[in-house]
Amino acid sequence: MPQYTPPIRDTRFVLEHVVGLDRYANVAGFAAATPDTVEAVLEEGGRFVAEVLFPLNQSGDLEGCTRHDDGSVTTPKGFKEAYARFVESGWGTLSAPEAFGGQGMPHVVSTAFQEYMISANMAFAMYPGLAHGAIAALVVKGSPEQQQKYLPKMVSGEWGGTMNLTEPQCGTDLGLIRTRAEPQADGSYRITGTKIFISAGEHDLTDNIIHLVLAKTPGAPDSSKGISLFVVPKVLVEDDGSLGARNAVSCGSIEHKMGIHGNSTCVMNYDGATGWLVGEEMKGLAAMFIMMNAARLGVGLQGLGVAETAYQNAVQYARDRRQGRALTGPAEPGEKADKLFVHPDVRRMLMDGKAWTEGLRALCLWGALQADLEHNADAEEDRQLAGDLLGLLTPVIKGVGTDRGYQIATNAQQVYGGHGYIREWGMDQYVRDARIAMIYEGTNGVQAMDLVGRKLAQNGGRAVQAFGRLVMTEIAAGKANPAVADLAQRLEKAAGELQAATMWFLANGMKDPNNVGAGAVPYMHLVGTVAVGLMWLRMATAAARLKGEGAGDAAFLDAKLVTARYFAERVLPEAGSLRRQIEGGAEAIMALPPEMFAAA
Amino acid sequence: MPQYTPPIRDTRFVLEHVVGLDRYANVAGFAAATPDTVEAVLEEGGRFVAEVLFPLNQSGDLEGCTRHDDGSVTTPKGFKEAYARFVESGWGTLSAPEAFGGQGMPHVVSTAFQEYMISANMAFAMYPGLAHGAIAALVVKGSPEQQQKYLPKMVSGEWGGTMNLTEPQCGTDLGLIRTRAEPQADGSYRITGTKIFISAGEHDLTDNIIHLVLAKTPGAPDSSKGISLFVVPKVLVEDDGSLGARNAVSCGSIEHKMGIHGNSTCVMNYDGATGWLVGEEMKGLAAMFIMMNAARLGVGLQGLGVAETAYQNAVQYARDRRQGRALTGPAEPGEKADKLFVHPDVRRMLMDGKAWTEGLRALCLWGALQADLEHNADAEEDRQLAGDLLGLLTPVIKGVGTDRGYQIATNAQQVYGGHGYIREWGMDQYVRDARIAMIYEGTNGVQAMDLVGRKLAQNGGRAVQAFGRLVMTEIAAGKANPAVADLAQRLEKAAGELQAATMWFLANGMKDPNNVGAGAVPYMHLVGTVAVGLMWLRMATAAARLKGEGAGDAAFLDAKLVTARYFAERVLPEAGSLRRQIEGGAEAIMALPPEMFAAA
Repeated sequence: MPQYTPPIRDTRFVLEHVVGLDRYANVAGFAAATPDTVEAVLEEGGRFVAEVLFPLNQSGDLEGCTRHDDGSVTTPKGFKEAYARFVESGWGTLSAPEAFGGQGMPHVVSTAFQEYMISANMAFAMYPGLAHGAIAALVVKGSPEQQQKYLPKMVSGEWGGTMNLTEPQCGTDLGLIRTRAEPQADGSYRITGTKIFISAGEHDLTDNIIHLVLAKTPGAPDSSKGISLFVVPKVLVEDDGSLGARNAVSCGSIEHKMGIHGNSTCVMNYDGATGWLVGEEMKGLAAMFIMMNAARLGVGLQGLGVAETAYQNAVQYARDRRQGRALTGPAEPGEKADKLFVHPDVRRMLMDGKAWTEGLRALCLWGALQADLEHNADAEEDRQLAGDLLGLLTPVIKGVGTDRGYQIATNAQQVYGGHGYIREWGMDQYVRDARIAMIYEGTNGVQAMDLVGRKLAQNGGRAVQAFGRLVMTEIAAGKANPAVADLAQRLEKAAGELQAATMWFLANGMKDPNNVGAGAVPYMHLVGTVAVGLMWLRMATAAARLKGEGAGDAAFLDAKLVTARYFAERVLPEAGSLRRQIEGGAEAIMALPPEMFAAA
Repeated sequence: MPQYTPPIRDTRFVLEHVVGLDRYANVAGFAAATPDTVEAVLEEGGRFVAEVLFPLNQSGDLEGCTRHDDGSVTTPKGFKEAYARFVESGWGTLSAPEAFGGQGMPHVVSTAFQEYMISANMAFAMYPGLAHGAIAALVVKGSPEQQQKYLPKMVSGEWGGTMNLTEPQCGTDLGLIRTRAEPQADGSYRITGTKIFISAGEHDLTDNIIHLVLAKTPGAPDSSKGISLFVVPKVLVEDDGSLGARNAVSCGSIEHKMGIHGNSTCVMNYDGATGWLVGEEMKGLAAMFIMMNAARLGVGLQGLGVAETAYQNAVQYARDRRQGRALTGPAEPGEKADKLFVHPDVRRMLMDGKAWTEGLRALCLWGALQADLEHNADAEEDRQLAGDLLGLLTPVIKGVGTDRGYQIATNAQQVYGGHGYIREWGMDQYVRDARIAMIYEGTNGVQAMDLVGRKLAQNGGRAVQAFGRLVMTEIAAGKANPAVADLAQRLEKAAGELQAATMWFLANGMKDPNNVGAGAVPYMHLVGTVAVGLMWLRMATAAARLKGEGAGDAAFLDAKLVTARYFAERVLPEAGSLRRQIEGGAEAIMALPPEMFAAA
């Protein structure tokens, strides 16, 4: 039976020593995040997901969602009751605005909880997760009336929410959208079209679902500049807040997916459904990006969350399973075989899982801190810096978090040998679930293009320069500290590869923009390697200091130092290879005519 | 709808210019492989698998196999009829010994066909594939009576065959086997025990299934030195060759797997089944390795075969799907969007698929040539060299072929975006099917240990030295040829990294064998990168020469040269990173006590 334990001690270590939560007590929202409150969220929230959501993870995968002839959808057994408890205990409201019934806590805190929820049950976590994206858009772009009408019940979790972007003919390229919005005399619009891959599009968890839908108004340009955002409730909401008539939106079918079977991914048919414009006409793309950026950070967190559970189970299996003997001679001569843990290659996979999950956790929480500071820091320059760092790192957290998440889940499955391939052990689910995170909310290739095509050049390269200064400052401090000097030196080398790659783009991107496109994904991984390396430098520095002070659990601190060393010795060297791939440029990649790709 | 076209032109190019089939006309078996015969195998065999087996691939995945209450198993719709046609047309007999009804062709030729069969339907291909392993063991270790009794019908395909090694408590560590073999007065044995993960263990394709089973005789040592191999037919065979009574072996259940649903992977119960010793008592491990080495090459070929189909479909999708615009400006301004092929990152994934599938095809066929030469070359030193190279490269073909196969399939799925995650498009099946190949017949970690722990050191390192000489000789020739000099130089650098890594093992393995274990998988990939680099050097050399001569299709030859360049610029640089990972050694990997792996 699979198991999951929320990594509370590790989260706490990151919040204290990487995020430095106590330094931001003066920032709006952080006052609420007292050590006691944070501890309660981690402990109680962790218990809730482990006891209520995790037991439904495997059964939800096996059962999946069911669409009935009337278009209604039943979620897997137990989801409805678990969701009711989720709403009741308020776990979805942690960082929602107090004005709409939220608890107004920093994103850092809700992100810590969300990781646990994803680890326990990714498919379940997507129901409130998608609502959060819709909430974010309404908070920024909704009219006061729309906000009052929808937000309190969306924030409480009483109502669900979705993001309707994709259509059969368009995913990334939203300019191709065909869904139409016809203005009506009363100021509303009639929405007509088909949306696909709509997560949580229809289900039985809530009385209402508030769809945010991209569509085109009459005469709008045939490009992404012509799209507008609409709010389309499943059930119309009367002015007194009561539920009215059913709107003309329905689930046409549930997609047959490789994984996340517990989430109802729907084809949604809009047949003249009544909707209302959110924000300005033809400014839908900007509104969409509010949802999207929140969602991308959430998807990066999915990479981490699923990987964590897969990793934990692989660790347990390596402790239990006996097979073969240590290379250095029998570790337990009295037993017929040693445990898997004696084998260096099994440990290599587990150390890789450990180094990346702990490193990505630090990066995700530190990224969430930037989201908080971007809005709430006192000084304009602090808000700008946080916004720059967050913008730069959002595609990295999404792309690298999910690429590595899939790799960690695959390695965890590998530790099980043949048993990893068999449904009973549950390991294949983590791989299948992790796979989607590399694709949705913009494929990882799209993330990489967002990074190199938009974020690098914005404001004269301000963000990447700020990131570089931060990294180099902390490296300089690390080099002066004998306890972490080797790691700092290796990180300096990796950061040098990143700088060289950035310079190469500058020098060669003007000649041929394909040179940048061809190096985009390796570059994203190069930034991710340096960013997670920075997290490890912070963690190792803190661990060495605490150890020197005799504070904390020495074994825990030693483990941090060993894992930091693993990252330095085994992961950071990839930076050189990534740089050289980038410097390979676009020529060989773009040279062949498409018809020569077939070997036949 | 997924599609598959056998890459005949590419296979032909490899057979001519990498394998050099015409140079071996004097070797036993090769005389039969006339150009016309080979052409007929590729054309007719390719047509057979594309027309008969591929249409059953997706339906077989969706339906899976069904076990009935009486223990019988039904394969997916259409498999039985397709198998009958397979047997009738003799596609399974290509390289089987003529003495037992085979066609006696070189393995090079049957390997080319097998790749096509796997590409068309991996789950189907496993039915005859497993029989081939059983045949190989009986050909070498079976008594003349056993050979006459079983081999002709196994070779023809009239009967199936299996390999029964794994038990619930033991996979890799065969010393832990509990299945017992009690000698009987008539010279037979009564076999009792449970085997799991038995591919093609029970099915409706053949009248009989010949199980080869590892078991322990009374008093045998409690280690792998105590195991013996037995032949246990599902239906006992009378002396006149007719089928007699049902033996006491049955399918207890079908495993619920992540993929290869079309193959019946069974729990097999032996309840005092009648079996006969194959070879000598307690020499089962050696006999098992005959099956296993054949099977490992076959599994490496699965990595290639599944990747090829996934790649072909991704190429087609990138040609059909319009999304976004080229970075250099609209490629087709008259259309609303350009095709996916304009995007450098899509091309990066496709070029990677092209470079690795074509490179692995060359390596698999060149490996098959070594299998032929090992047995049939005239000169003892040629046989020894071929045996050395094959032994060294078998774990590399298996491990690198399947790791890369999974990666290519994953990338191919990625090209589809969200549609890749949906069952209808068929891409998730390739990923799920490819996943098992990294696990069975020895996980890729076990392959890597076979490489560094056994194959490197055997005969004073003779094999790796021979491989190194071969690589350096061809690099020297390449450097003198302006058309391929850059590739040769880059390959020389990669080969230098390999040599340095080998030296590092020599220097540090004695101090601590875990240093070798910790670097085993990166080393395996380093050898694979150099070996496939050698294949590309050969292909590029031939393409440049033919182009200079004005022979052949210039576009095809140009594509070879461009793809070789891609491999040189984008893949070979990984060698340096792999070497540095190896040089990281075992310390950080082995330092933590197992209880410190949990982050909780």
